This record gives sequence, structure tokens and C-alpha cells, in this order.
Amino acid sequence: MMERRRRSRNNGAMSDATKPMDADAFRDWGHQLIDWIADYHAGIASRPVQSTVQPGEVRAQLPPHAPEEPEPFDRILADFERVVMPGITHWQSPHWHAYFPANASFPSILGELLSAGLGVQGMLWQTSPACTELETHVLDWTAELLGLPAAFQSSGPGGGVLQDTASSAVLCAMLAARERATGGRTNREGCDGTLVAYTSEQAHSMVEKAAGIAGIGRAHLRLIPTDNTHAMRADALATQVAADRADGLVPFFASATVGTTASNAIDPVGAIAAVCRDAGMWLHVDAAMSGTAALCPEFRWIHAGVEHADSYSFNPHKWMLTNFDCSAFWVADRRWLLEALSILPEYLRNQATDTGAVIDYRDWQVPLGRRFRALKLWFVLRSYGAEALRAMVREHVRLAQDFAQRVERHPLLELAAPAPLNLVCFRLKDRDDAANRALLERLNASGALALSHAAVGGCYTLRFCVGQAKTTAAHVDAAWERIVEEAQH
Amino acid sequence: MMERRRRSRNNGAMSDATKPMDADAFRDWGHQLIDWIADYHAGIASRPVQSTVQPGEVRAQLPPHAPEEPEPFDRILADFERVVMPGITHWQSPHWHAYFPANASFPSILGELLSAGLGVQGMLWQTSPACTELETHVLDWTAELLGLPAAFQSSGPGGGVLQDTASSAVLCAMLAARERATGGRTNREGCDGTLVAYTSEQAHSMVEKAAGIAGIGRAHLRLIPTDNTHAMRADALATQVAADRADGLVPFFASATVGTTASNAIDPVGAIAAVCRDAGMWLHVDAAMSGTAALCPEFRWIHAGVEHADSYSFNPHKWMLTNFDCSAFWVADRRWLLEALSILPEYLRNQATDTGAVIDYRDWQVPLGRRFRALKLWFVLRSYGAEALRAMVREHVRLAQDFAQRVERHPLLELAAPAPLNLVCFRLKDRDDAANRALLERLNASGALALSHAAVGGCYTLRFCVGQAKTTAAHVDAAWERIVEEAQH
Repeated sequence: MMERRRRSRNNGAMSDATKPMDADAFRDWGHQLIDWIADYHAGIASRPVQSTVQPGEVRAQLPPHAPEEPEPFDRILADFERVVMPGITHWQSPHWHAYFPANASFPSILGELLSAGLGVQGMLWQTSPACTELETHVLDWTAELLGLPAAFQSSGPGGGVLQDTASSAVLCAMLAARERATGGRTNREGCDGTLVAYTSEQAHSMVEKAAGIAGIGRAHLRLIPTDNTHAMRADALATQVAADRADGLVPFFASATVGTTASNAIDPVGAIAAVCRDAGMWLHVDAAMSGTAALCPEFRWIHAGVEHADSYSFNPHKWMLTNFDCSAFWVADRRWLLEALSILPEYLRNQATDTGAVIDYRDWQVPLGRRFRALKLWFVLRSYGAEALRAMVREHVRLAQDFAQRVERHPLLELAAPAPLNLVCFRLKDRDDAANRALLERLNASGALALSHAAVGGCYTLRFCVGQAKTTAAHVDAAWERIVEEAQH
Repeated sequence: MMERRRRSRNNGAMSDATKPMDADAFRDWGHQLIDWIADYHAGIASRPVQSTVQPGEVRAQLPPHAPEEPEPFDRILADFERVVMPGITHWQSPHWHAYFPANASFPSILGELLSAGLGVQGMLWQTSPACTELETHVLDWTAELLGLPAAFQSSGPGGGVLQDTASSAVLCAMLAARERATGGRTNREGCDGTLVAYTSEQAHSMVEKAAGIAGIGRAHLRLIPTDNTHAMRADALATQVAADRADGLVPFFASATVGTTASNAIDPVGAIAAVCRDAGMWLHVDAAMSGTAALCPEFRWIHAGVEHADSYSFNPHKWMLTNFDCSAFWVADRRWLLEALSILPEYLRNQATDTGAVIDYRDWQVPLGRRFRALKLWFVLRSYGAEALRAMVREHVRLAQDFAQRVERHPLLELAAPAPLNLVCFRLKDRDDAANRALLERLNASGALALSHAAVGGCYTLRFCVGQAKTTAAHVDAAWERIVEEAQH
């Protein structure tokens, strides 16, 4: 490293370090940042997981005005270490058990780097054909790996696209559903307050957010009751749909969840699909984290019924080693999505689009512009191979199931919900919400691990997710010991 | 480089190159990719700008199934060179004059790399405080650099956020406007077909897309006529607003454009603001590319009247050296944006949020999750300093103005629109659209440069934008010679 820097300087390319970065300086700093990232990941397990800075503490260390003159990059990186790093919570720590994971991996980081280095913008096939075609291709690959229905393959009327998040995916699904239900009228003329959407009371808030954004109205999203596994009750859905119809409303969309955020509950997709079919409703399936489990045939039961879904999404950026953002979204018939989102002004017209022979992904998403996200997913799928991804899923599920059994056997703790895969909801037995909240706060304050919480069955519950790429049995053991220790306080 | 690789191998860390990547392998491949990117940018001027692959050509070279076993990274990179690179159109070429630029820069690429390496997800302040606080801070810096109104600073009721694109920014602006206009009713109960929005007939199609998404209805977006500079006519806006009111409709939102996509027309923001104020409408200002010009006091006239805007956006990812995606969006009063987009389920609650002392940017955007985008903007602002950015803007405007003068003096060519900044619209004098389209196609097919086109005043026009970071006088000279040569055919 230092040798290279001296050589560059001898060539005169870095004669003034305060000048904006030239190619030789980029090589040197780039190599140093690659090494910094390797070191960061190597040492991350020993860092306190959550940042302990106070509100305003980071900003207070930054100058009030942008600099007029160039600053040398070593000073910027020194500030990064001094000011930014204390304000970082380490999502890539093996002690990360909070929320859902957002896994990075070395091949994925290199994919992001190369995407940034190329700097192409893939709004149209024409503006970098490989950006579009690689995306279509890896989404076909991925649909096959998960055993998703053939209808989602791009060879038919369906196909896949990479979105930033599952929130954007469910919004796009809702827009496509609105288009189909009203023959495009709502897109042209606006909504009229008659459309009604459905999801479970345990579904992610993104569905409610999407209903607000899309002009459906949050109050027109029905939160369907759940059963004792916290999964949507298809019978209650059918009852609500019938009641809404009787009131002159128009049921048009349901979102089923495969692995809810609170407790990883698996909605009965097949039974929900039957209700949707009878009512002529669009069925979206959100499997944001848990979809990855379907890499393994033994977990593919979570997707039973998904062959009847109109759209489906899961996030390789959660549990499949591909850096955030990378949310995969498929539709069984792309026609409605395109009719909902496509506008072709003259300045975007081009021969390839006019032939109809290409995909222009700008019509599959809210934004116009888009990054080359497929590169990182391609790097991950090829660098690991499907078997290694399956092995990771199996090990995480095994560790979570083992953790759940320890909870069940422990006198002070209890499971707060079934743990079908890699998320365990637990709490202090016979203790109130305040005691459980205090336990969570003690655990997180220790810096030894990060957990998060949820409301399940009306009670405050701790969530322990095993999904961080680096998490091994030893990390789960250490977490367990810490939890038991704090539970005894 | 090779020395490092041998050392790694001697340590046994790379004993099996087909295993998923370990830290030493990441260092080696990372260094090689950094060097590849440096070489790519060094040699990019000599590559044909636009890819010439045919539809399907990239995919045809990819295997039909994802691999079961890990593949060595050298094989993946070889495929990247062999399969992907021919399908890349080189947005970072100095010969890029198409659309608007999407500039990368070395400091920005390093910011993306570091963001990917950290792998934090900044949905809440709590989930990485530095991710939020650095973003707020650099947006305050940037608003000051552009001379934007004090209302956009985070110290008051307003503030800024980084979105992916100006499309998402205008959608968020429309949702905030809808919230304010209806007291939250449309968010809760859905739209009812009475709201009407306004933009010019030359505005970007993203405004129409947003009106469809938000349940306003595309037909309820009025495309206001433009004057002989292709800028919105404020008098025509006032007339249309009055007519809509008389029809019982509710005007609620207008989007003014500072630098239209077709011809870089500058809408009269002050006069439009007066109409909006009288009608109680939200005023959004979209300055996606041209906003960057306001770094220079002599170009700040483009923003006259922006002190009356409710929201404003421009894209550092276009003309300010910060990799796509990086779209800056400010509101004068964040209340409406937050009321439109905030939902707080139990699983996202945390002490910091409950205090009200922090910003949770998930409430400022459509998605929940978000990358650490501020890092790259911070790297750019500090590595270059404001003066170097101003120098770039001035040189690009100078080159574009010089190009416009050559067009005016040339017997075969004519300007198709005024060229206020760095975009020149021109066409073959006394020739039809087909001849101009053929000229564009010949130029782009040459590989020597990339242009795009638009419809201006009903005529097909070529667009020549000078905004790519590497573009110098020599590149503009070469482009001019090629254009003149092809025009004579």
C-alpha cells in the first residue's frame, strides 16, 4: 500500500494532495478503503453493536459551512473515523439480532463498487442494455431457486424487477391492482373512495403507507384479524370482503405476508388466494425476509398457494447476502404494472423501445432513474452458489430453533409466538410490559448484542432474529448467556 | 497487487479459490476492481459511447440456471468483461451529451464503497445516528451553497432529505400538498376526484406519473401552455386555476421547472408562486439538473422566487459529481410531509423517536429502508470544495454557450430553443423531423458521441448537453466537427 503511494507521488500525479482526486490518488485511497472494510468486518464482533451517541452529537462536530477549498482525503477519512463511526450501529455484526437483518457480503460490496464505478443509469434498455438484461436474467434465476411459479418468469407475460424496498414493491403491486380493477380509470381520473384493500393486523405498516400514498385511503385498508399463530384468518377476510361489497365498496387488493415483521407468522396464502379469486382481487405476497428460506425445499411450504398470487416480493438485501437496497418483485402479468406506470415522452423514445422487444424498467417502478443493482445479486449468486446459500439458511434456522427450545425450557422466559423459521419472540414469564422493555434496554445498552421488540397478541415481546451472515452457534450461545443473566436481574 | 495476493495465499487464506470470498480475497479483488475502475475512467474517452448490442444479446450469453456451486471470482469478472461490458453505454464518457448527465466522481465512488462496506440501514435515527445526522447536515450545507431560502434549513420547521430521484421527490411533494389541502382527509379516506394539479406542458413526465400514483388522476394534472422560451405562462396558470375553481374542483399543487428536460426552459417561479399563494396551492420547484448552476451567484437568477416555494429538489447525481442515486429534496415546513408519510408501528418505536428530538427519515420518503447516501455527497463537497464545483459549472456553461454560437453561425443548423445554461437544442435548418432524426441516429451510431432528442415547439430537435464531468473544450470541438460533418450528408 505505502509502496504504491510513493510510486504515485514519484510520478508527480499526487504532487498536491489538496487537489481533487486524480486516478492515482483514487487507486491509493480505494485500496486503503478496501482494506479498511476488510478490517472493519474482521473486527466488527468486538464493537458494541449499537451506537451510544446522543441526538445532535454527530452534527455538533461538523463545521457549519461546506468548505470553499478542496480538503485532502486523509483529513476527510480521519473525520469519518472520529465523527461518523461513533454514530454507526453495526448491522453487519454477528451479534445483530434486531429487526430483520440487512446483510452485506464481500462479493456484494464489490458489486456495489463496480456499479458505482460504471455509473450507468438503467432507466431504459437503451441506456445500458446489460443493466436491464442482467437484471431480468438474475430475477429469472432467483425465481427458479425459490421454486416460485413459472408465471413469474420473464419468458411469459410476467417477470421480475429489482426495487429498492418491499415498501415500494407493495405500492407498485397496489397500483397495478388498482389499474386492473378500474380499467385504468383511477390512474386517469383519480380515486373515488370506493376501493378497499386488505392485509392482516400483523402485516407491515408499509401496506397502510401504500394505501395512503395511492389515494385509496388508509381507512380503506382493512386489517384482518389473525389466528393463534398470528396469521391472517382467511375466513375473516372473506367475511370482511362480503361486508364491504354489501356496503357498495370495491374490494380490489390483498397483501398476504409470509413471515410477518412482528413474529414471522406465515399467512395461509392458498386460502387467501381462494378468497381473492372469488372476489376478483389482486393478491400480493410479501415475503420480505422469509422468502429466502424457500431456497431450501424443506421450507418451501411457506409458499404454498403462491402459484395463485398476482405479485410477490422478497428482499435479497435481508437474508440473502446482497447489500441493501435489493428488493425482488415479480408479477404474473406485467401488463397492469406497465399500464399503471408507463408514460413515454418524446425525449425518452428510442428505436429499441419502439420495437417492443425490450424491457424498460422505468415502467416497472416509481422512479425514472435506476442503478445497476443486478450486478451485486449476480456476484452473490455466483460467488456463493445456491448450495452455500441453502447451508446458511439451514444453519440460521437450526440456531433459532435451538434458541427457541432454550427459551421454552427456561423457568423465567416464555415464547411469545410460534417460531416457524429464524425469528424467536420471547418475553419474561409472568412479568409486565415494563419489565420486558427494561430487559430489552439492558440488553441493548450492554453493547453485546442488538435485539428489537414488537407487540404480539397485545403484549410487548422481544424479538431475536438469527439471520446476520456472520452469526454462528458461538454468537447465539453468547447472546443466550447474556439474556439469561439480564433476565435474572 | 500480485505481491499481496501471493502473501495472502501463503497465509492459507485463499487455499481454495472457489470458496466464497474471505477477507484476504476481498482485499485482492477489491484492489483489482479499484484499479479496473481507474483504468476504465482513464480509457473511457476512446470507447464507443453507446452500446451496440442487439436486444437479447447479453442474456443469450448467460447460463439458464444459477450455479449450485461457488464459482471463482476471476471467472465472474471474466464474464463481466466478456458479457456485460459490451452491453454498457458509457455515461461517464466525456463524449456524453445525451439526456442530462449522471456524473460519478472518484470521491463519490469511494463514498458508495464505504457505504456498502458499512452496510447500515438508516430508516430511523436510532438505527445509525450518523447516517441521519450527516444527511441533515450536508443538506443544510448544500442549501446554503445554492443560496436557497433559510426556510429549507433544518434549524427551523423545514429541512432536507436525500431521495433516489426527482420523480420520488415530486411524488412526496404532491403527497404533502394533498395532506395540507385536505387536512389529511385524502390520506385517511382516499382521494375523491376533486383535486387538481398543475405543471407546464414542457415539464417532466414524472409529474404526470406522480399524479397517477397519488390517486389524483393524470387527467387532473393540467399541462399549462408555455411562452416563446418554452417556460410556463403564469397568466395561463391563473386562468386555468380560476376555470377549475369555477367547475368546483380544488387546485392544490403546482410544479414549476427550473430547466426543463426538453430544452432547459426556466419557469418564472416568482410569478407562478404568486398564483399559488392566491389559490392556496403548494408550490414545488423541480431543478433536477439546473439547480447545480446556483452554486454560482451569476446563475442564481434561475431561482428567483424560490423563497416562496413549499418544496424544492435538485439532483447532485446529475451535475454535481455525486453518483446516482442522490436527489436532494427540501420542504419549508416538514409537518405536512411527515403527516402524509409517517406511521409508527410498535416494532419501530424507540426512545429517541419518542423524545421527538431526532429525525427519522423513513417518514420523509416512500420506502422504509434507506442507504447511507450522505457519505458520498459529503466526500464530494469536501474533496472538491465549492470553488471547484463552481469552476466546473462555469466551464460547462461557457462551452455550451460557445457551442450555441457556432450553431447560430452555421448555415445548415439553427437553435431550436434558447440555451440559458448548459443545454443546447438545435436542428437542421429547413429540414423535416425525419432528416433530424436521421442526423441523430448517424451521430449516435458513430460511437464518437451520444446525443438525445426532444420535441420542442412541436418539432424534433437534437439536444446537446455539456455536463459530463470530464468534458473539456477539446471534446466539444470534436463533437462539433462530427456534427457539422454529418449535417452535410
